[in-house]
Amino acid sequence: MRALILDPSGTLRLGERDTPSAESECVIRVLAAGICGTDLELIRGYAGFSGVPGHEFSGVVEDAPPNDAAWIGRRVTGEITVGCGTCDGCRAAGRGHCDRRSVVGIIGRDGAFAEYLSLPATNLHRVPDGISDEAAALVEPLAAACRVLEQIAVTPSTRCAVVGPGRLGLLVALVLRAAGADVTIAGRGDARLSLARTLGFQTMSGGHAGAAARRFDLVVDATGQPEGLATAKTLVRPRGTIVLKSTFHGETHVAFAPLVVDEITLVGSRCGPFDAAIDLLANGRVDARPLVDAVYPIDRFTEAFAEASAGRKVLLRPSG
Amino acid sequence: MRALILDPSGTLRLGERDTPSAESECVIRVLAAGICGTDLELIRGYAGFSGVPGHEFSGVVEDAPPNDAAWIGRRVTGEITVGCGTCDGCRAAGRGHCDRRSVVGIIGRDGAFAEYLSLPATNLHRVPDGISDEAAALVEPLAAACRVLEQIAVTPSTRCAVVGPGRLGLLVALVLRAAGADVTIAGRGDARLSLARTLGFQTMSGGHAGAAARRFDLVVDATGQPEGLATAKTLVRPRGTIVLKSTFHGETHVAFAPLVVDEITLVGSRCGPFDAAIDLLANGRVDARPLVDAVYPIDRFTEAFAEASAGRKVLLRPSG
Repeated sequence: MRALILDPSGTLRLGERDTPSAESECVIRVLAAGICGTDLELIRGYAGFSGVPGHEFSGVVEDAPPNDAAWIGRRVTGEITVGCGTCDGCRAAGRGHCDRRSVVGIIGRDGAFAEYLSLPATNLHRVPDGISDEAAALVEPLAAACRVLEQIAVTPSTRCAVVGPGRLGLLVALVLRAAGADVTIAGRGDARLSLARTLGFQTMSGGHAGAAARRFDLVVDATGQPEGLATAKTLVRPRGTIVLKSTFHGETHVAFAPLVVDEITLVGSRCGPFDAAIDLLANGRVDARPLVDAVYPIDRFTEAFAEASAGRKVLLRPSG
Repeated sequence: MRALILDPSGTLRLGERDTPSAESECVIRVLAAGICGTDLELIRGYAGFSGVPGHEFSGVVEDAPPNDAAWIGRRVTGEITVGCGTCDGCRAAGRGHCDRRSVVGIIGRDGAFAEYLSLPATNLHRVPDGISDEAAALVEPLAAACRVLEQIAVTPSTRCAVVGPGRLGLLVALVLRAAGADVTIAGRGDARLSLARTLGFQTMSGGHAGAAARRFDLVVDATGQPEGLATAKTLVRPRGTIVLKSTFHGETHVAFAPLVVDEITLVGSRCGPFDAAIDLLANGRVDARPLVDAVYPIDRFTEAFAEASAGRKVLLRPSG
């Protein structure tokens, strides 16, 4: 099958890869796959991954082990972490925190920038007919956005800010709004802030955060940049909460004394509930379509990644 | 009156200061006052404080405004923050987070290393007869330890570690144990770890934290050092909580990606409930006496601060 292959030197090329077998996992033909900030980090050498990247996808199950044959023909998306189910991490916090986990297109497991990928049936979620292939490829990041609601009580009176008007930031803002909250989006990039306004959000340039200092109960940093936390610290009220959605390589310099004195809570937040995300798309509470800037066939991956690097949301159609 | 006075150059001297008046606040003769890590930081120039330091105290109300005359003669300790009650910070999170607050011996208000200090009656708490002057001077840090129980649900099955076997760390450990939890204390300093064992806690050297990696549900950093967070990160389990009790000057270099991937929650924690702390002392659930290493008259303050700088818990008797 055709696949985008990242080699250990950081080069991404279109090549041939063995099609996965249905011996122990379902085999999924990939219909759409999103390029995410993490993919761009992987290409920069983050986490030392080599193989096929891509972890936001929709597809159709084309083959499956006998016990999972009912999945064949279904349109699906999938949770990306495969755990052992028995280690301390799995028992303490679920398979997402397995000490020996593999993660689709990120750790020890080929991903979705290929004609096919494989996953255990337990990781799969059926996609209702009303959700397009492209929107279904956004279920994974939308689920990550929904994770915030599992961690923090958000009500219509929660004053929320999202720092970082990228795709994840906008999804978080849409989810917070779906929970009834007022949401302001702070960040850089006129085009991104303009999209945020088109979606109906108040916006502010990150450099002007001082005017709204200490005003927000909940601030979500979805910048993917070390600077995001500094802006979030400026915006959050005493005893407020900052949710950290950004995984970036390297260290950040942080003065912790103000966080202690103001009794700020910082919450690391990663993957989230697929069912909740699929429900939000299916019932129209979240419309993900404005978030997709472009869709490319896989052989135009160079253009696709260049556009994604410029901050736009790009999907690939690996088997189209 | 006699008082220890910190001048802007960082010199601490025993001098004369006007005795406070009872025009708008109660006047308290100080019976005992603890030297705390924050005091040592103040002397190093933290927060630019000058005046009389000292914020852990017990005393007797000797004079009061007419409306508060009932307080005269009572033995008391006091909450250290005086807020305006009307600003955004007060309304959002209480007077402890007042935008214009003064703090006894820390911000804009003279403290307890003096024969007398003054505080509004609303800040005072009566000390029951069964609690000694010295133990009552530990109510403020014990209340700060109790704050953890207001922020985090601690049960007998919560696996707790405290990093930093100093006085605050031991108080936190005592409070967590009073809530039924198993507590392990990690840190440096043979004498401090030995005291921790005498108090009945399991201990580990901070350098050996790796053997207990990712084992604890709740880790409290009470080291007062930038290195404390690194040890806490090693010890906490995925989806666990780190409570930050240390306020130290300057920045810490932190890799945030592991905190996000492991979905760790960091909680800044400062002052706490005096009533809960007084109850723990009064009913014997916490015995603070082993935590006091020495008591000095105020004119031996040089010795007292040298001993406190060496990591021992020292009280002054400013009016004795």
